[in-house]
Amino acid sequence: MKTRNLVGDRFKERPADCVIDSHAMMVKGGYIKYVANGIYSLFPPAKRITKKIENIIREEMDRIDGQEVLLPVALPATLWDESGRYESVGDELLRFSDRNKSRMVLGMTHEEAAVQLVRDFAQSYARYPFMIYQIQTKFRDEARPRAGLIRVREFTMKDAYSFHTSQEDLEAYYARCYEAYNRIFARCGIPETVAVVSDSGMMGGNISHEYMLLTPCGEDSIAICPECGYKANMEAAKSIIVNENAAPAEELVKVETPHVSTIEDLCGFMKCRPEDTCKAVVYAKNSDDKIVIIFIRGDLDVNEAKLKKIVKDNIHAAVITEESGIVAGFIGPKGLPSNVEVIFDASLKGLNSLVTGANEKDHHFKGFNIERDYGSVEYADVAKIVDGGICPECGKKSIKISRGIEVGNIFQLGTKYSKSMNLTYTDEKGESHYAIMGCYGIGVGRLAASVAEVRHDDYGPIWPITIAPWEVQLCCVRADDAAAKAAADKLYDDLQNAGLEVIYDDRDVRPGSMFADADLLGVPVRVIVSPRNLAEGVAEVVTRDKSVSKKVSMDNVLEEVKALVKELYAKYSI
Amino acid sequence: MKTRNLVGDRFKERPADCVIDSHAMMVKGGYIKYVANGIYSLFPPAKRITKKIENIIREEMDRIDGQEVLLPVALPATLWDESGRYESVGDELLRFSDRNKSRMVLGMTHEEAAVQLVRDFAQSYARYPFMIYQIQTKFRDEARPRAGLIRVREFTMKDAYSFHTSQEDLEAYYARCYEAYNRIFARCGIPETVAVVSDSGMMGGNISHEYMLLTPCGEDSIAICPECGYKANMEAAKSIIVNENAAPAEELVKVETPHVSTIEDLCGFMKCRPEDTCKAVVYAKNSDDKIVIIFIRGDLDVNEAKLKKIVKDNIHAAVITEESGIVAGFIGPKGLPSNVEVIFDASLKGLNSLVTGANEKDHHFKGFNIERDYGSVEYADVAKIVDGGICPECGKKSIKISRGIEVGNIFQLGTKYSKSMNLTYTDEKGESHYAIMGCYGIGVGRLAASVAEVRHDDYGPIWPITIAPWEVQLCCVRADDAAAKAAADKLYDDLQNAGLEVIYDDRDVRPGSMFADADLLGVPVRVIVSPRNLAEGVAEVVTRDKSVSKKVSMDNVLEEVKALVKELYAKYSI
Repeated sequence: MKTRNLVGDRFKERPADCVIDSHAMMVKGGYIKYVANGIYSLFPPAKRITKKIENIIREEMDRIDGQEVLLPVALPATLWDESGRYESVGDELLRFSDRNKSRMVLGMTHEEAAVQLVRDFAQSYARYPFMIYQIQTKFRDEARPRAGLIRVREFTMKDAYSFHTSQEDLEAYYARCYEAYNRIFARCGIPETVAVVSDSGMMGGNISHEYMLLTPCGEDSIAICPECGYKANMEAAKSIIVNENAAPAEELVKVETPHVSTIEDLCGFMKCRPEDTCKAVVYAKNSDDKIVIIFIRGDLDVNEAKLKKIVKDNIHAAVITEESGIVAGFIGPKGLPSNVEVIFDASLKGLNSLVTGANEKDHHFKGFNIERDYGSVEYADVAKIVDGGICPECGKKSIKISRGIEVGNIFQLGTKYSKSMNLTYTDEKGESHYAIMGCYGIGVGRLAASVAEVRHDDYGPIWPITIAPWEVQLCCVRADDAAAKAAADKLYDDLQNAGLEVIYDDRDVRPGSMFADADLLGVPVRVIVSPRNLAEGVAEVVTRDKSVSKKVSMDNVLEEVKALVKELYAKYSI
Repeated sequence: MKTRNLVGDRFKERPADCVIDSHAMMVKGGYIKYVANGIYSLFPPAKRITKKIENIIREEMDRIDGQEVLLPVALPATLWDESGRYESVGDELLRFSDRNKSRMVLGMTHEEAAVQLVRDFAQSYARYPFMIYQIQTKFRDEARPRAGLIRVREFTMKDAYSFHTSQEDLEAYYARCYEAYNRIFARCGIPETVAVVSDSGMMGGNISHEYMLLTPCGEDSIAICPECGYKANMEAAKSIIVNENAAPAEELVKVETPHVSTIEDLCGFMKCRPEDTCKAVVYAKNSDDKIVIIFIRGDLDVNEAKLKKIVKDNIHAAVITEESGIVAGFIGPKGLPSNVEVIFDASLKGLNSLVTGANEKDHHFKGFNIERDYGSVEYADVAKIVDGGICPECGKKSIKISRGIEVGNIFQLGTKYSKSMNLTYTDEKGESHYAIMGCYGIGVGRLAASVAEVRHDDYGPIWPITIAPWEVQLCCVRADDAAAKAAADKLYDDLQNAGLEVIYDDRDVRPGSMFADADLLGVPVRVIVSPRNLAEGVAEVVTRDKSVSKKVSMDNVLEEVKALVKELYAKYSI
């Protein structure tokens, strides 16, 4: 392929709307084209990258006995009625009607379709275990698509579904898939990806892991313990707070606190620390709009994922009306209306003397003691874990919060879908059981963008050779020089005949412009032919990551490049 | 892969709802699973087949300098507003709204998205010509999906779009693509596919071809001239009727014809042939419901595709009300209300004395002469060509009507989309022009089903090796026999180590059942290991098409199979 024929433009300016580097590079480098909010087309270089990623995924899925299938993008709503998710999933499930007014959805995940595919096949224990996977388009009507291919509405995803007759078998397969995922990310050039314990969210099931590529611009927060290796998504991480040396109980006093309605103002007014306050956070349940108030130590935040599990419902920010009897800004446990659900976070345990709202405009209590002034309560774990917090695994105050991009996830679904959709099998004794399932996803486009996010310099992406759009970038500097052009043309043929994927720039443009374009294409090995090099009988061979830069005799260029390419592949082979 | 692990069931009974053989085989053979009307999931064998087809297509598209891209499935309606197709395309374009009430469509074809992708890139003549293609999911909300994968609503399609600066360049590229298509179908094992002239329909543009696989169960009718090689879709074929030795003009007489309202009844009543009648066919235009009446020789039918071009609108069957002034069953040219659009088919030219309606209940004319009794008219070509009709190319009465499945199409679009969507480029002189486009489609799943339709026997498909789910089917008859099992196991390893794709049936089932399943999988080369064969020191090597059937010494089986596979591939190499 010649650069002059490559469809797509490369340009210098950083697009104004690109917040993160990978997004900017993929626009500037002619990889993606904006079509609509969260919807992109892929130019040839991006398609080449994603095809390579897909093939790596395919090989690793086949290696753990996966069988590739294809499930529909447009699904009948009745399938989602069966699982209950037509009702339970929010607006991110795109619902529509076809010409016959049949209700349909765009598949955002395919548990329902996978169960429907195998429900007849999987009726005997002898058929188990098995795994099916597909690589296919999904649509998720995200409220806030962002960051180019990182969070989109339409995306290509590998999703796999495994079926088992026992929890042990699921766990054994889950472990195989865990390793397959490690291999996939290593082969795609990001071996540093870590698996963290996650919250299963709308997928249901119990144990699940997310594969996180740590980068400051990631949108997930991960709690990592460098001491014991514990890793969890902040959403799933248990918060442990030990209130040592708490202040002794004091007398309960109501204080007039005019216009003091934030923790910050309150601490200033009361001359106390946030840790000395009992903060109220107010939500409403999605199903009945009933208000839930969480009391939590004033320096901590509520983890909504954990809260959802406790209230067994989706939640949203509450609208506090006058009729509710709740006084926004002055909420405290004592004197709340009885129709309000109250949850006390474990961070309040052991605190004897708190500052908190008095449920009366412009008034707070000080010296508030939960057991004495409110009654005995059960504490729940609903706080977000914090940097420097206690590791739930080893107990040390060692937690570090990092940010990461989720590039894959694996779930032990259990029987959630087999029960709701009646996927049963008969065992050796003729007894019927629900199948036990796992599911395993990787977003292909997001993975490509994530690699660019952690493998780039100021000039563009530095693609690992395993997923690079081409293996070799050939540059003919001064293509108007007949000798240089002839030598480069010949090298182009030789490299291609050797089975290498070459992008050849023989445009009559300035070297600076040629190299800037090459940098944006991020091809790992670059060969530069120029009149000056030719006069010395050499070509320059450099790598995109600058680790190699040498002059090679024209006679040896082909062998040198072949060896270098082989060496680069070896870096990612596992 | 072992048959025992293959996901999907194979069974004996022909499903009741399958009209054509390929559909029945693909259901019985565990290839496809019905999900909803016109929507199927693919089991692993079908996915393996379609992947091979996709790779053949990819290779041939790359060979004619195509660049693979990916365009979205879900598209903003604004793009289709630009081209005008949001309005002009019927219910087969699925329109919906996203969570923000933005109007969207599911891509059924991607001219709009392709133009949007390259509109910035293609602003200079120096960028031309180029071709982009994708292999991706499409959705077309067909009113009547049928025949399994032959006519579905959701399907995988290769669609390609080429861009040119002159009609000559488009034509030259069109010719290259024409040849690439021939290679694709030949490599997929159906070299008999023919290219026929077609009607461009909703795609717009002028010249277009359809690739037809001739089979009695095809839904398209094709006019073929065995004399000169002319081939056209019946929709596009010009009808030539020469009325030789027409009866002389007679006097115009109104005849009472009670309850005689069909051509058949009329001929019986009037003692004439259908060729002696002037039949009225009534349509209404989609845009304004205005009635169009086509007068045509009574033995012929109206070609709606040609009619749409003449009236420059979509059409539907008219509802004839009393207010219209039209008397259904008794319509004729003379005495029609003036607000009705009238078209005379060329088949009426030269007929002097016709039987036709008198526009009065229970009355017809006989001796009707168009010029004398109605006035001079311009005749149009609106009739369907008929078997035995005149070839528009060589003029002989040689036309044969065959049926076929459309497995691909190519269109010269011209400037339809570049004009409506403002895709312009600047030429050498700095002048602006609209780009000239071509587009080129192949439905992957339909192609797979079509091959099965023309390559099968009573027991299942006979896949060409180039697209077969596996190359070799290994059968261990009497897997309970330790020696047979050990020999088959070893052969399985050997075949796989030789790089062959093998499906291995080592289930302890009866040979009849094993072979029935193998027939349904349609793998081209079969190797049978059994205790009886082993006693002779041989295995049986047979081909699915029965052209080869021999006993081969166990020592030579591997080499024999390798040679046979190579030979089969050679059959389809081009």
